Amino acid sequence: MAIKSVSIIGSGNLATHLARCLFLKGIQIRQIFSRNSLHASYLAHCVRAEDISDLRDLMPVDLIIICVTDSAIAEISAQINGIGCLVVHTSGSTSVNILAGHGDFGVFYPFQTFSRNMEVDFDKVPMFIEANNSKNTDLLIELAQTISSNVRVLTSAQRLKLHLAAVFASNFSNHMYAIAEDILTEADIPFDLLYPLIRETTEKVIKTGNPVSTQTGPAVRFNLEILERHKELLGHKPLWQKIYTFVSNSIMERVTDERNGTF
Amino acid sequence: MAIKSVSIIGSGNLATHLARCLFLKGIQIRQIFSRNSLHASYLAHCVRAEDISDLRDLMPVDLIIICVTDSAIAEISAQINGIGCLVVHTSGSTSVNILAGHGDFGVFYPFQTFSRNMEVDFDKVPMFIEANNSKNTDLLIELAQTISSNVRVLTSAQRLKLHLAAVFASNFSNHMYAIAEDILTEADIPFDLLYPLIRETTEKVIKTGNPVSTQTGPAVRFNLEILERHKELLGHKPLWQKIYTFVSNSIMERVTDERNGTF
Repeated sequence: MAIKSVSIIGSGNLATHLARCLFLKGIQIRQIFSRNSLHASYLAHCVRAEDISDLRDLMPVDLIIICVTDSAIAEISAQINGIGCLVVHTSGSTSVNILAGHGDFGVFYPFQTFSRNMEVDFDKVPMFIEANNSKNTDLLIELAQTISSNVRVLTSAQRLKLHLAAVFASNFSNHMYAIAEDILTEADIPFDLLYPLIRETTEKVIKTGNPVSTQTGPAVRFNLEILERHKELLGHKPLWQKIYTFVSNSIMERVTDERNGTF
Repeated sequence: MAIKSVSIIGSGNLATHLARCLFLKGIQIRQIFSRNSLHASYLAHCVRAEDISDLRDLMPVDLIIICVTDSAIAEISAQINGIGCLVVHTSGSTSVNILAGHGDFGVFYPFQTFSRNMEVDFDKVPMFIEANNSKNTDLLIELAQTISSNVRVLTSAQRLKLHLAAVFASNFSNHMYAIAEDILTEADIPFDLLYPLIRETTEKVIKTGNPVSTQTGPAVRFNLEILERHKELLGHKPLWQKIYTFVSNSIMERVTDERNGTF
């Protein structure tokens, strides 16, 4: 027995990409629920599903995917209590047990950053699975493998750490680019001059798999004079100055640990 | 008149890449100086130059490139006082005026992160030029154009800000990857699972040219519950916890400014 019909609660970026991808792989999308009924209707139309804006209209299917902001999962789960089929959420930082009120429950976590207008190649997106028993784990693995070539089982505790790592690697590095852009704008220098540098930095990390070894810049050289000069330049932005100080300190601490073999 | 012969003081990563690239473009490399004479000898051999380990042996050429760590530039410059030819440094954060003791002086700044064993395609590396007069500016532009298709003139003040932006965009985002790797290692999860996420984050920024618009994650959604959960997980690493707090605050501040139109 495999999962052949799915309903999705939510119509945000992830819900949109997931519904589209499952649909294109031949999975039937039965219903799409959204509080924002225009979104639900649009998405439902795309994947030939029924759009609903009242959870009491939700019907049992092989799998219901709760694909909403983390803080709304508990409430949604309570509202569909007794639906009597497998229910999963898609959150990195939320325990599987938030769905324990259902007989069959799990997690279906695609590990990628999703924006509405960017195509996503799901085949390369790692999918992390967790479920309340091995039968449901196997069902979710099988479904995940229809859309991704990289499927793994992960506990809630591990997934929380994975999500934390992703916040640093994706959200925080993106904000480093945002600060860089703001600094360049102030100096009347176009942001695209940074692209070769950004590309090379990322490629080095991916080629070596070892970001400590690819660290460059004044902090890793303990060039305190330049660190001071840069901090001065950030005098008008106290938060950026703090970020500069603590990230530089962390680089110096990490490389010292590495050299001393104490990490 | 163009620059046809160059000597290089230094034999680190940048000196190595620059010497090799100029040599391959037909520029004669006359002398390579290094305190570490084995390095100088190796590099000099590669580019058919003479290796010297005493600056008193340095001879005038069309251009001398001081390619050493920022804090050593002043001392090197003093030691070659009176050499009587164009002298430049390659530092992002050092004013051109540190070389004002020479009659002809400037800056030749390649904007990229260099590691010894990574090939660099100089053609895509932006080169930033500054000099004490327009004749020297033109000479340096012409030389830079032999190795790069992206050459610009920039003042010392602008270059300092450009370098600061590069620290955020390259050195600091690299350290975000390093922290992510350490978190994953603790959780026994392989680092390469992050590669698709890292690639997508970078590609989005480069495609849109607008890192504020591509920001995702719990901070930009003001999901304070997850922020608290993540900070708790970092209890054993006070410096990472501070970085998490201040970068999240900065994301929330930046997006609020953006929404209010106050940035």
